[in-house]
Amino acid sequence: MGETYEAAGVSIRAGEDAVAAIKDDVRSTFRPEVIGDIGGFGGLFRFDPSRYRDPVLVSSTDGVGTKAQVATATGRFDTIGLDLVAMCVDDLVCSGAEPLFFLDYISVGTLDPAHVKQLVAGVAEGCRRAGCALVGGEMAEHPGTMAPGEFDLVGFAVGVVERDRMLTGERVSPGDVLVALPSPGLRSNGYSLARRLLFDVAGRSVDDPAWDGAGAPTVGEELLVPSVIYAPFIRALTEAVEVHGIAHITGGGLPGNLNRALGERTDAVVDPGSWEWPRIFSELQQLGSVSTDEMRSVFNLGVGMVVVVPSEAAHRAVDTLRTAGTRARIIGEVVPGDGTVRFDD
Amino acid sequence: MGETYEAAGVSIRAGEDAVAAIKDDVRSTFRPEVIGDIGGFGGLFRFDPSRYRDPVLVSSTDGVGTKAQVATATGRFDTIGLDLVAMCVDDLVCSGAEPLFFLDYISVGTLDPAHVKQLVAGVAEGCRRAGCALVGGEMAEHPGTMAPGEFDLVGFAVGVVERDRMLTGERVSPGDVLVALPSPGLRSNGYSLARRLLFDVAGRSVDDPAWDGAGAPTVGEELLVPSVIYAPFIRALTEAVEVHGIAHITGGGLPGNLNRALGERTDAVVDPGSWEWPRIFSELQQLGSVSTDEMRSVFNLGVGMVVVVPSEAAHRAVDTLRTAGTRARIIGEVVPGDGTVRFDD
Repeated sequence: MGETYEAAGVSIRAGEDAVAAIKDDVRSTFRPEVIGDIGGFGGLFRFDPSRYRDPVLVSSTDGVGTKAQVATATGRFDTIGLDLVAMCVDDLVCSGAEPLFFLDYISVGTLDPAHVKQLVAGVAEGCRRAGCALVGGEMAEHPGTMAPGEFDLVGFAVGVVERDRMLTGERVSPGDVLVALPSPGLRSNGYSLARRLLFDVAGRSVDDPAWDGAGAPTVGEELLVPSVIYAPFIRALTEAVEVHGIAHITGGGLPGNLNRALGERTDAVVDPGSWEWPRIFSELQQLGSVSTDEMRSVFNLGVGMVVVVPSEAAHRAVDTLRTAGTRARIIGEVVPGDGTVRFDD
Repeated sequence: MGETYEAAGVSIRAGEDAVAAIKDDVRSTFRPEVIGDIGGFGGLFRFDPSRYRDPVLVSSTDGVGTKAQVATATGRFDTIGLDLVAMCVDDLVCSGAEPLFFLDYISVGTLDPAHVKQLVAGVAEGCRRAGCALVGGEMAEHPGTMAPGEFDLVGFAVGVVERDRMLTGERVSPGDVLVALPSPGLRSNGYSLARRLLFDVAGRSVDDPAWDGAGAPTVGEELLVPSVIYAPFIRALTEAVEVHGIAHITGGGLPGNLNRALGERTDAVVDPGSWEWPRIFSELQQLGSVSTDEMRSVFNLGVGMVVVVPSEAAHRAVDTLRTAGTRARIIGEVVPGDGTVRFDD
């Protein structure tokens, strides 16, 4: 008997089963612009040129980092797809763009169709929340180089914005107000440090009970709290209120992301007393005596998105966001400067 | 001293150095439609709506599979970016689309700016060949879960085609001819089997001399032979000749890919005597006594792209492709059927 691809660890059959298992989830995301079905050489999305004067396609790619390892250790694969969509589409909306479509790439050690179905169900749920169609994807089996149960998840999102409505930082002006949207957990950033603190420094495991005040019963589930997808809230906001800038707070925290929404002639001054860190962040800080500066430059600390609005629109912005379904609060202001984020400690 | 992200294995500084190292390569791919520079929340690409009546955005994602492990073992990182671009854009062109822009995602165990620069230089070279702009990307450091030197590379391409020029298989008719574009190596598919045959079954290493008739001196370099990017050849062809269908031959070989270019009422009959396998495929087959059916369903066997054209256009197609810079040959024909690929053994 000769050697086969199957014997080398790649199962064509498991791939076909996995595609069959995800079809309904994928189709549930289709917008009217989607042409065809899954299985073609490319995802197909009609773009109506009469709807735009000078459209700009905005695109973004991101992964879920080592949050994937927490999912594997915990055995929960149904929510990390939400994190993936959040990471990608919430970058898009910072330009003022409407998300149109999404693609996912899943690499696994061993292709388990039930496992893939959970991952894609999460991605599809995220796409429905964000209003974008899941038009394509790839499943790659990497036997020998990834352990069974191990996976990586990468996403790509494309959106569109009219060029003259694109947010570039130019509109941000001294006197503008910073409106923060809350994040209950780490989103998908800082997991290498969080895992080191919890598992290496403190010697805990994912099945250990979480700390007092945690929203989830175990350390693993607390770490897996899914990322909020802000895209629908931001869309509701930009339709109702003049917005000068938007920043998605991911790796780099407020200092490394809010600066990207500023122009070159303004600073953002954040009042650290204006909100309380979700409990997980204080817990992580204590475990490793992590400095507050380090915490701020690694984690979102409870602020996942910042919207910059004129001061006279601030309260309407908070009300609009609340009506759209999220809390929001003012955490600081814009002053003359050079594009830096400062904390008013 | 408190714990830090750096101590947990993630270096912000290395990330900044890597971004600085790749800037010129990335900018070298920019088309006039690109707005802004690298470093924003999203890639920005102007889309001129007046150029199209009913445009369809075609998108595709793929990785390089375990060819990445061969690159790591060989210590050559400058060509696998070409494979990544080929995998993605040559899927797009199967719909008749023009590639517009590309994004890459690189995950590494330890972020080495020099290593990332080589990877991105290959991606940028691929984008220039394919005529698409590299508008965005992500570098993710996964300490602890990937070894130093290990990496994964994922790509994402977007193109555009007029809806009434989109290739769907409907135009493929009995009597049409199959024109094959040659592939000198494995492209980016079948590496789990190839690695098993060469390294596990035959006990060779990447530094061993390659076989007689190989184009490269060592096993590793022979395995790393970069994928041809067919996109520019296909564009030249579709502008000069009526094309009924296009199939990119990746995982699944001719039987699993050429079928996707057929309609439901035609078969493709391939004459296996019409071309010779590149030496690497015969070598792999012999090492593991792999059946010819298995070889055909795993590897491209020297045919990386098949174009289906009316018989009267076949010779003009071959000439046009030759002028554009690639050899091409007729390897079979289309007959009435149900969408199956058969070999005329």
